[in-house]
Amino acid sequence: MKDHDESEYFSPDLSDRERATFEIGIKLGALYHLLSGVPISSDQKIIESIEKGFEASITCQPYVKSVKLNIIKDKIVGDKSTELDYDEISGEKIKVTVIIEYKSIRVVAKIEWIEKLQYPLMFIEKIEEL
Amino acid sequence: MKDHDESEYFSPDLSDRERATFEIGIKLGALYHLLSGVPISSDQKIIESIEKGFEASITCQPYVKSVKLNIIKDKIVGDKSTELDYDEISGEKIKVTVIIEYKSIRVVAKIEWIEKLQYPLMFIEKIEEL
Amino acid sequence: MKDHDESEYFSPDLSDRERATFEIGIKLGALYHLLSGVPISSDQKIIESIEKGFEASITCQPYVKSVKLNIIKDKIVGDKSTELDYDEISGEKIKVTVIIEYKSIRVVAKIEWIEKLQYPLMFIEKIEEL
Amino acid sequence: MKDHDESEYFSPDLSDRERATFEIGIKLGALYHLLSGVPISSDQKIIESIEKGFEASITCQPYVKSVKLNIIKDKIVGDKSTELDYDEISGEKIKVTVIIEYKSIRVVAKIEWIEKLQYPLMFIEKIEEL
Repeated sequence: MKDHDESEYFSPDLSDRERATFEIGIKLGALYHLLSGVPISSDQKIIESIEKGFEASITCQPYVKSVKLNIIKDKIVGDKSTELDYDEISGEKIKVTVIIEYKSIRVVAKIEWIEKLQYPLMFIEKIEEL
Repeated sequence: MKDHDESEYFSPDLSDRERATFEIGIKLGALYHLLSGVPISSDQKIIESIEKGFEASITCQPYVKSVKLNIIKDKIVGDKSTELDYDEISGEKIKVTVIIEYKSIRVVAKIEWIEKLQYPLMFIEKIEEL
Repeated sequence: MKDHDESEYFSPDLSDRERATFEIGIKLGALYHLLSGVPISSDQKIIESIEKGFEASITCQPYVKSVKLNIIKDKIVGDKSTELDYDEISGEKIKVTVIIEYKSIRVVAKIEWIEKLQYPLMFIEKIEEL
Repeated sequence: MKDHDESEYFSPDLSDRERATFEIGIKLGALYHLLSGVPISSDQKIIESIEKGFEASITCQPYVKSVKLNIIKDKIVGDKSTELDYDEISGEKIKVTVIIEYKSIRVVAKIEWIEKLQYPLMFIEKIEEL
């Protein structure tokens, strides 16, 4: 039922490279907003479970080859020493690398907190022809 | 730093049982909206990673003793046979049991899709004094 | 189609007051996680549109009588003087009052950032018989 | 404080067009996941408030020139005739057009439910030099 081609909906003067960067933008925007506000503590097992859960999820999206999510432990305040002592995921704790392949184009993109911008930047690190 | 008592903010005529059901309501509301729209496929490993990730997360919240999340595989359409062939989490696929303990009160609550209501009902199954 | 009664799913020894505090807990948990990460700037019109949008949404949920959301302008950093100069909603910027009525019980609850707890506390301010 | 340039983080062989399609992908991915699960009813005022709230929010993001969100009323089940009689936003109800301008490139992109794909497609309708 989902074997139709979606390319007819796209502007015909879009290159494969442009389509590929569009696709990886979608994944970063989605992941960032899925992660925002997720409860977390500094317990290593908790962090890893959450990382693996979101990696598994984003891997389901179109053209994704790999997702490596790293929630930065040093920025998590809260080890559950009291009931209220935990944290939640936000931009400055997110570090992720996503790789997609669209046709012959491979793109590597990241979300990373940039101190001097004070901003969780989404950027394309590499784009190449396979 | 988080060793202060939050109880002073609550109405003084609130019983421990009323506080306990309030607390578990928060967890169900939070979990439901964290899950909504999360990409998923029918692959068993993907499902389990996502389940464990959200269980770990909600366990960080105040008074939570356990979380058992079950994304209903039979309702997931999409096994990644094509790029667009995956699904996302929504109310009818969520089955979860959360247990909290507030002071001497233990509450068991669930989210479950109820066919005849056509609704992902959040309900308290059990409330007891420990 | 949705005229069935959901009360049969609840523990029979749950009082109306306990049910009411459960219901309002759900709304606070839901609202908090819907708001987390929503892009915002310090422009008054932007703030008001976002507040009204979420007030309208939460009012659709069961037993809700009113929702008053206040995103705290003084805590928003970013007036769009540059492209990256905006902010996102997070716990310390949220102030909300929700009122529900379940049968003869009326509950007023809030989310508010408490400085000395360093926590976006959800609490019941008032519970009364109508 | 946010006057630094983020372009140094991007691959040097990325064209302005590729950057522009990346940027609009981010916005669509973000908006889709912010909308998923938001409570809604078929009341016209409720729908409009929610639409305007999210339009205002996404307009804060980098390079966005306009956002037109249309939650499709005919697909919303629930007019609050009973407490449980409401709906939530999901892919098949979302229709949105976002326009961004990055340097001299203008991109128009959409999210729209495509019946024959059974999928909420994100696609680029137009890309042009200003």
